[in-house]
Amino acid sequence: MQNSFPPEELRGVYRAIYERRDVRSQFLSDPVPDLLLGRLLQAAHHGPSVGFMQPWDFIVIRSPEVRRAIHENFIDANRQAAKIYSNGRRELYDGLKLAGIVDAPLNLCVTCDHDRTLGAGLGRQSDPATDLYSTACAVQNLWLAARAEGIGVGWVSILNPERLRALLEIPERITPVAYLCLGYVTDFASRPELETRGWERRESLARLIHFDGWSEQDEQRAASLLSS
Amino acid sequence: MQNSFPPEELRGVYRAIYERRDVRSQFLSDPVPDLLLGRLLQAAHHGPSVGFMQPWDFIVIRSPEVRRAIHENFIDANRQAAKIYSNGRRELYDGLKLAGIVDAPLNLCVTCDHDRTLGAGLGRQSDPATDLYSTACAVQNLWLAARAEGIGVGWVSILNPERLRALLEIPERITPVAYLCLGYVTDFASRPELETRGWERRESLARLIHFDGWSEQDEQRAASLLSS
Repeated sequence: MQNSFPPEELRGVYRAIYERRDVRSQFLSDPVPDLLLGRLLQAAHHGPSVGFMQPWDFIVIRSPEVRRAIHENFIDANRQAAKIYSNGRRELYDGLKLAGIVDAPLNLCVTCDHDRTLGAGLGRQSDPATDLYSTACAVQNLWLAARAEGIGVGWVSILNPERLRALLEIPERITPVAYLCLGYVTDFASRPELETRGWERRESLARLIHFDGWSEQDEQRAASLLSS
Repeated sequence: MQNSFPPEELRGVYRAIYERRDVRSQFLSDPVPDLLLGRLLQAAHHGPSVGFMQPWDFIVIRSPEVRRAIHENFIDANRQAAKIYSNGRRELYDGLKLAGIVDAPLNLCVTCDHDRTLGAGLGRQSDPATDLYSTACAVQNLWLAARAEGIGVGWVSILNPERLRALLEIPERITPVAYLCLGYVTDFASRPELETRGWERRESLARLIHFDGWSEQDEQRAASLLSS
C-alpha cells in the first residue's frame, strides 16, 4: 500500500516493538559510544510533543559516584516497597532484580519542563498533563531505537523522587519522568522477566477493546481483529 | 555489534521515528482494514508497563455519529483555546487545522485504568503517575507501527475531557490519555506542520543535554555527541 515501508523496514519496526525488553540483569560494562548515545537522544528528541513544545531534558549520567548514590536511593525505596507483599508474593518480589543502575555503564534521566514556552501553550489548555505524555513518548522512541542498536534499556520506577531531584539538582518546575539504565547486553530475553518469573501474565488484548463507547465490549468481535 | 538489527531493519526503526507525523490534514476516507488495526493494537499492547500492569484500554470508534459528537467537543474546546492568542499569533492559530476527527475513518481513545490490579502495584509506590507514562508509551508504539504501515495518526489534545468521558461512558477511575485519528493519507509531510507553518521551530538538542546533574550543561560537549 502507498506510503508503507518495504517489508524488511516494516519488520524492523515490529521487531523493535516485540523484542524490546525492560533490562535489569543482562548488562555488560562496555561503554556506550558517544555517537550511538547521540543517535538515541536524537530519536527521543523526535518524539511527538503537544504544540511542538519539546518539554524534555536529558541528564546523561556516567559518573560512578552519582550512579552509586542513585543506587542507594533505589535500595531504600525498594526495601520500603517490598513491605506491602507477604508470603509467596514477598519471596517472589525479593527474588526479582529490579534495577541495573551500577551494572549499566550509562544512566539517563529524562525530565519534563512544565513551564517551557515552546509551542505557546497550544493543545495544553484542555489537559495540562499532555507534556508528561509527550515526554513518555520520547522515552519510547529512545527505547525502540536502542533495541534496534543492540542496547538494553531498563526503566527504574522504584526511586524516591525527592532524593532523586536533590541528587541531580533538578529544579522545582521540572518533573523527572524516567530514570533509565542503558548498556550493551549479553542477550535480550525472549519474554518479559516479570512474565517468566511468574509475577504477572500478559493480559488478553481482546478483553481490553471496546467499540464506539466503554460499555460496548464484544470479545468475539475484538478477537476477529486479532486473528492474524 | 551483537544483538543489533541488520541495516535495513535498523533503518526501518529510524525511518518510523523520523517520518512519523501528527496528521490532521491528509486523511483519506478509505477504511482501515480490521487486521491492520489489530496489528496496531497489538503493537500498543506490547508497550512497556510498570510492573507489567498493562493499564490500557482501547475504544475503537468508527461510528460517524460518535465522531461527529467528538468533533463538536473539539470545535467548542478549540474556540475557547483560541482566546489566549492575539494579533498575528491568533491569525496563525486560526489557520491551523488541529484535528481530523471526521475526515479520518477511524478514531481510537486510549485510556489508563489506575485501579488495574495486574502487576500487584510493583513499581508504582514511588510514583503513581507511572501508569500514565506506560499508556503514553503504548500510544507511541502504535504511532510508529502505523507510520510503517502507511497509516497516519493524529493526537487530538483539544477536547473537554469531561464531555469526552460522558460521551464515551468512561468510568471515573479511568483516565482518557490519548484521542487519536487514524487513516490512510495522501502523503506524510517531510516536516511537522507546526514547524512549516511557523508556529514553532525545533529546539537545538544540544541545549537540552546535561551531564551527571542538572547544572552541568556544556553545549560543546553535547554537540560532540551529535556530530554524526
